[in-house]
Amino acid sequence: MPDQTPVSVDALQERVTAIFTRCGVRAPSAEAVAKVIVAGERDNCKSHGIYRIEGCLRVLAAGKVEGGAVPRVHDSGKAVIEVDAGGGFSNPAFDAAVDVLAARARETGLAALVIRDCLHFSALWHDVEALAARGLAGLSMCPSYSFVAPAGGKDPLLGTNPFAFGWPRAGAHPYVFDFATSVAARGEIELHRRAGTPIPEDWAIDAQGQPTTDPEAALAGAMLTFGGHKGSALSTMIELLAGAMLGEFMSREALDFMGRTDLLPRHGALVVAFDPETFSARSGRDPVAEGEKLLDAIAGQGARLPSQRRFQAREVALDSGILLSAAELEQLARFEAEGLAALDG
Amino acid sequence: MPDQTPVSVDALQERVTAIFTRCGVRAPSAEAVAKVIVAGERDNCKSHGIYRIEGCLRVLAAGKVEGGAVPRVHDSGKAVIEVDAGGGFSNPAFDAAVDVLAARARETGLAALVIRDCLHFSALWHDVEALAARGLAGLSMCPSYSFVAPAGGKDPLLGTNPFAFGWPRAGAHPYVFDFATSVAARGEIELHRRAGTPIPEDWAIDAQGQPTTDPEAALAGAMLTFGGHKGSALSTMIELLAGAMLGEFMSREALDFMGRTDLLPRHGALVVAFDPETFSARSGRDPVAEGEKLLDAIAGQGARLPSQRRFQAREVALDSGILLSAAELEQLARFEAEGLAALDG
Repeated sequence: MPDQTPVSVDALQERVTAIFTRCGVRAPSAEAVAKVIVAGERDNCKSHGIYRIEGCLRVLAAGKVEGGAVPRVHDSGKAVIEVDAGGGFSNPAFDAAVDVLAARARETGLAALVIRDCLHFSALWHDVEALAARGLAGLSMCPSYSFVAPAGGKDPLLGTNPFAFGWPRAGAHPYVFDFATSVAARGEIELHRRAGTPIPEDWAIDAQGQPTTDPEAALAGAMLTFGGHKGSALSTMIELLAGAMLGEFMSREALDFMGRTDLLPRHGALVVAFDPETFSARSGRDPVAEGEKLLDAIAGQGARLPSQRRFQAREVALDSGILLSAAELEQLARFEAEGLAALDG
Repeated sequence: MPDQTPVSVDALQERVTAIFTRCGVRAPSAEAVAKVIVAGERDNCKSHGIYRIEGCLRVLAAGKVEGGAVPRVHDSGKAVIEVDAGGGFSNPAFDAAVDVLAARARETGLAALVIRDCLHFSALWHDVEALAARGLAGLSMCPSYSFVAPAGGKDPLLGTNPFAFGWPRAGAHPYVFDFATSVAARGEIELHRRAGTPIPEDWAIDAQGQPTTDPEAALAGAMLTFGGHKGSALSTMIELLAGAMLGEFMSREALDFMGRTDLLPRHGALVVAFDPETFSARSGRDPVAEGEKLLDAIAGQGARLPSQRRFQAREVALDSGILLSAAELEQLARFEAEGLAALDG
């Protein structure tokens, strides 16, 4: 790829932070948002990389996210830690609370973090990797926009509701998965629409509830969950635990609140941290060593562990920089020079 | 069905309890085991009903479960409660600890129950229904025997690893799902083998890792997870959280320990309880009322909520008794009269 230029992770972090600062985001929040965007780009997870800058700036321009919001951690002393994002991005809120969460999990065995009223755009693997780096297993989940029909239904009601899990490994990247409970991402259907190509049969139904391979009909209808009724059940669980239980928006209310589908959603999020040391103490076994037996046996039969491609891309990027195309660099430069004004250009 | 005779739930409970007592299970444990077996039969969930009695008696006869084990609750005062089943059935252990778990969850917001070294044969919906009846949301999971290959692999390593979730509803049965992370149950493949019919294409692979519709080849190969790599990831999570993290068996070690596949497995189990009141308190919203908006909208579009068939069967059974066939009644009578000696008859 001849038009690719390497940019170091640190340099990209500085540039993306500066873009957000210039667009009215307070410095520590700009840094937190940039960190997850650069991490996505670093891991060659392009859908959560610098491509996301424009989407974030659009919600800022629309006045639908509070760039100046200061996350407030609320610690009642129980096993539930809360952080009020105050309508700001989820990332600085998570960063503000993760150490409290980790300390509480080590103290009580498990603890939960409730993030309230945040603009959420980032992949959930950040959350569970941050916990794994602290020796903790973790779950993370949140609702999104109601684009997905429940199994047996026909109307969009559930979000694409991602679910992530992380497990600490000794001397290796953690075991991490992070998947949408919908079969596909909405953006993938949109790409098929633009390309004029049909979508696979199990992705969506039309407005009458019939299976469709027409991306237009799918976008006017509803997406489907992965794994039939089991995926639908998991997605429903995420609405209940990370929406209703917290007293935060479920996916339908998130969409009603924003009133349009082209802006990133605002809702809450739930993260649960487990301390394997506490859980295993009386067994006399080393939980991380036990986990290795399973993970080695998976890899040993030639099956790929989730996130491995991401970790490989990360090592390359940390070593020799992140490769950005001329078009990407041009867009970065435009955002740096013009801030929110670049959006209409 | 002319040969069906109604038996009241209470009468069946008494008879099944008596069978286990006669076979050397201490009275409170016999009662707990009978309770879940009768609940399965009552809910027309035949695979977990009185059909299970024989399997339980076989492990008793093989000396692989401790009928006299007294569950010991270990409460460190943290958010993790442990109960040592002592090689006995999981059900009396759960019953011994569920009130402590529920009280701790209300106190701290969430709490976990670790069940150690138990013979596990029952559906997980019992656990999450017991929590929902106490106003709590709940997760339950456990490993089983390593019959399932990870996505992209070919050798059996994961269990059929069930996952259950429950959510309390106002004035209605709770929202409950309970599913295997394998596409199908091993017993279903066995039924196809006996009937000489092919299995669906996505159920299993043969010993060479190739897709197969031959039940014999499937039983000699490996079962597959539901939902491809996502189901495989969930199943791996269950091995790690409910096996490695607790310092209890994962599915491969459970199979090695028992040394044969025709006896029910011994391993641990993990149950997590969430108190919606604690999680929602600062939001000013009623979490159960919020949940109803979602569940009503699912049912309102004609989609069936999971467990509804079970709850309907339950209402019929509580009203007019559980219908048992002549063959089922005959087997019950034989177990009552002969105890373990009936196994070879």
